[in-house]
Amino acid sequence: MLVNKTVCGFVEELASNSAAPGGGSTAALAGSLGAALSIMVCNFTEGKPKFSSVQDEITQIKQKGLALKNDLMDYVDGDTNAFDEVMKAYKLPKETDAEKSLRSEKIQEATKQATLLPLKVAESCVEVLKLSLKVLTIGNPNTACDAAVSGVTAYAGFQGAIFNVKINLSSIKDETFLQKVRDKILVLQDEADKSNQLILARAKEVIG
Amino acid sequence: MLVNKTVCGFVEELASNSAAPGGGSTAALAGSLGAALSIMVCNFTEGKPKFSSVQDEITQIKQKGLALKNDLMDYVDGDTNAFDEVMKAYKLPKETDAEKSLRSEKIQEATKQATLLPLKVAESCVEVLKLSLKVLTIGNPNTACDAAVSGVTAYAGFQGAIFNVKINLSSIKDETFLQKVRDKILVLQDEADKSNQLILARAKEVIG
Repeated sequence: MLVNKTVCGFVEELASNSAAPGGGSTAALAGSLGAALSIMVCNFTEGKPKFSSVQDEITQIKQKGLALKNDLMDYVDGDTNAFDEVMKAYKLPKETDAEKSLRSEKIQEATKQATLLPLKVAESCVEVLKLSLKVLTIGNPNTACDAAVSGVTAYAGFQGAIFNVKINLSSIKDETFLQKVRDKILVLQDEADKSNQLILARAKEVIG
Repeated sequence: MLVNKTVCGFVEELASNSAAPGGGSTAALAGSLGAALSIMVCNFTEGKPKFSSVQDEITQIKQKGLALKNDLMDYVDGDTNAFDEVMKAYKLPKETDAEKSLRSEKIQEATKQATLLPLKVAESCVEVLKLSLKVLTIGNPNTACDAAVSGVTAYAGFQGAIFNVKINLSSIKDETFLQKVRDKILVLQDEADKSNQLILARAKEVIG
């Protein structure tokens, strides 16, 4: 598994001349890093009398953050696996008409999965962005910088995931699927951009 | 060393209730991931007859990318070490006037180092952004998505590093140092924003 490699090993593997892991797994990792930093801020706010008025909210943020971190870590390998399935489908035999038809069907199926995976990454990153904004607002100010980095990292994860969704759409023929995904992208993009702007504005206030 | 932890272990350590690693090391890692993805695009362009006209440029980009990746990987641990030095300085005895004076001097020294380190991260990320833009423009279009993710990840690394520089400036008294760093931030911010805008515009053209 990619997430069991060392950080150094993962970066080397990314830089190598193999197609996977690539930008998709990187986007999921960026999201995980963002989630982890929001959790860190919760850990520096939890149980401190100074922040007693926000303890319930912080507990909820931490729980959501932990779930998102775990999901996004799964997607690091998930994205590479989904990509590998597309590559496998392309390698299916295409001599007879029956083979051609089956191959085409399998390519479409695998590409849909390889589209839905980064779409999940994008959705999770939007949720992380909401947490980043909250912890930047109500969390321990000593960790404001970590909250802000949580935000920009999750936004990079979001953008990267959307690139991966879009690149796959060009190979998909199912118009209903395409429209559904395009509509979803618009909603997510709007949410992500708004959160990102609020995070940057808040960071400017508290960090400079 | 942080970079010798597993990806999973690094993310857990980040989320934990210890002050380091935090946003600073994460910013350096985001930069490394960006550099690695630009190198990956070079590996998919190098030696391919189809891209023969850009081979020299790709070789140069790859060499720069490798150096930047290595530097940024060093900064992952470097940032946490610099932060630890600041914490150590704060723990120095402060009973006598001599102790107070020495402690204050050591805090200033360590904080300057903890400011210069993320400034180096920011500078390296600006260089990575230039490479991302180049590989997105002249690299193998099959890896356009990886080039675009390289860009957004390096930009997150840049933003995160600048947050870390700025947060430390508030504790530094040396006006000459402060002005020098503030001037540098302005130059870097301008370069990073411009590259980021060009990358996003180019990604829109080639990815959608």
